[in-house]
Amino acid sequence: MTREQLIENIKSKGSFLCVGLDTDINKIPAHLLDAEDPVFEFNKAIIDATAPYCVAYKPNVAFYESLGAQGWQSLQKTVDYIRDTYPDQFIIADAKRGDIGNTSGLYARAFFENMGVDALTVAPYMGADSVTPFLGYDGKWVILLALTSNPGSADFQQTVDNEGTPLFAKVIETAHTWGNDENMMFVVGATRGKMFEDIRRVAPRSFLLVPGVGAQGGSLEDVVRYGMTDECGLLVNSSRAIIYASRDTDFTEKAAEEARKLRDMMTILLCSGGVM
Amino acid sequence: MTREQLIENIKSKGSFLCVGLDTDINKIPAHLLDAEDPVFEFNKAIIDATAPYCVAYKPNVAFYESLGAQGWQSLQKTVDYIRDTYPDQFIIADAKRGDIGNTSGLYARAFFENMGVDALTVAPYMGADSVTPFLGYDGKWVILLALTSNPGSADFQQTVDNEGTPLFAKVIETAHTWGNDENMMFVVGATRGKMFEDIRRVAPRSFLLVPGVGAQGGSLEDVVRYGMTDECGLLVNSSRAIIYASRDTDFTEKAAEEARKLRDMMTILLCSGGVM
Repeated sequence: MTREQLIENIKSKGSFLCVGLDTDINKIPAHLLDAEDPVFEFNKAIIDATAPYCVAYKPNVAFYESLGAQGWQSLQKTVDYIRDTYPDQFIIADAKRGDIGNTSGLYARAFFENMGVDALTVAPYMGADSVTPFLGYDGKWVILLALTSNPGSADFQQTVDNEGTPLFAKVIETAHTWGNDENMMFVVGATRGKMFEDIRRVAPRSFLLVPGVGAQGGSLEDVVRYGMTDECGLLVNSSRAIIYASRDTDFTEKAAEEARKLRDMMTILLCSGGVM
Repeated sequence: MTREQLIENIKSKGSFLCVGLDTDINKIPAHLLDAEDPVFEFNKAIIDATAPYCVAYKPNVAFYESLGAQGWQSLQKTVDYIRDTYPDQFIIADAKRGDIGNTSGLYARAFFENMGVDALTVAPYMGADSVTPFLGYDGKWVILLALTSNPGSADFQQTVDNEGTPLFAKVIETAHTWGNDENMMFVVGATRGKMFEDIRRVAPRSFLLVPGVGAQGGSLEDVVRYGMTDECGLLVNSSRAIIYASRDTDFTEKAAEEARKLRDMMTILLCSGGVM
């Protein structure tokens, strides 16, 4: 998907919501456990319930990988279902991959060619040749970890170098020599508040994928106040607060309700921000 | 596997060789392609040929993931085969994973509980809570990326902070507050030569997993000169130079020959280094 298409989808839906499909077999409603593929049945129901209110889905690959080959099948079926049924949804595999050049090339093939997602999260630690193999695909995106939402992000990401630049800013600046705002986004945690201003200094036009609203305690208003651009420039992810809004037979209604609430807030923020 | 067992295996075999199972379906001998699972058949033959000369196997997960669910099955069969047939081999899943705490916990479950490997490579960028979930398993190891063998390692890993510490050294120092030399190793590329001295200043006793000998141009002698300890402290990986030594029907003989050559050099280095 191109940047223009993504922005158009955000405007037409009044939403920059990404629904995180962090599907844990131990947390899905009991009545689904008899299905042949409970994880896929759960995802399908969540997707049908939330598609009107979001522009993106983000399965975190760990949840599927923890189930072995069967989990990979559930993930592939989920991606195929979104692609076939809601072709305007942006699909992100949250896999945080990255390896030496020829090996990153294999991960690119796995996710972009075989699985068919639009975007992949990538870890920057190994540098240029671990990231550039993902950039050679038309309409596909790298989403590079920059400043993550978890406590451990303080350990290295905020380390200031001998020129006064924190590592997360150096990652963003350096990455702009590898890719551009049409094929690269950055992960910035919603728990970062005012630090979005620092991010926007080095990435004024980039889309940011923002996890951490909801269960992790980030504030949507702060993210928008400090991070929104005149083209939106944000995909805000919510996982647990939507997909586990209820663990009973009404889980689709409750998920839709949570997603709709966020969409309604986002529409107001897009209007007041001058995007719509 | 405990540290003591690993050191004992190195001494009794006169080898600190790790064979990298970077199995690419496009590079395996043509006569295997008719098998039901050519990747597994290739691995099985390579393992049988090289097991006398090595102490560890390291499948890089990207090669299997690029084949989807079928690839995961080949990987699981490979791990099971090593475990059942050569129980003294140390098995490393080279996956370079890492995510927020609860998600890293799922990766730990995937690799340590379900797949049953001894060790997993982990990327440090997300900090403490992305790594510590892997440390709670008896006899299992985190192998944290520190100073990798690829050109991109210059981009961030060697960035010097405002206290004069390069990032790779800060990663090693900080990681020692999370784990210890009984459950944590570090990846240091063989292409780093004298920089092993810097590594040994911050990790005097740690085991180092060293890729990059062979196809990537690193020197075994330099690695040993600057990196070996009195307990060895090294696992040196070779992938392509062994597993693709021949692409014909004699591939097992040639793989064995390359592995044996490395083992012979290693035995001499272990003796002259006073380890054996």
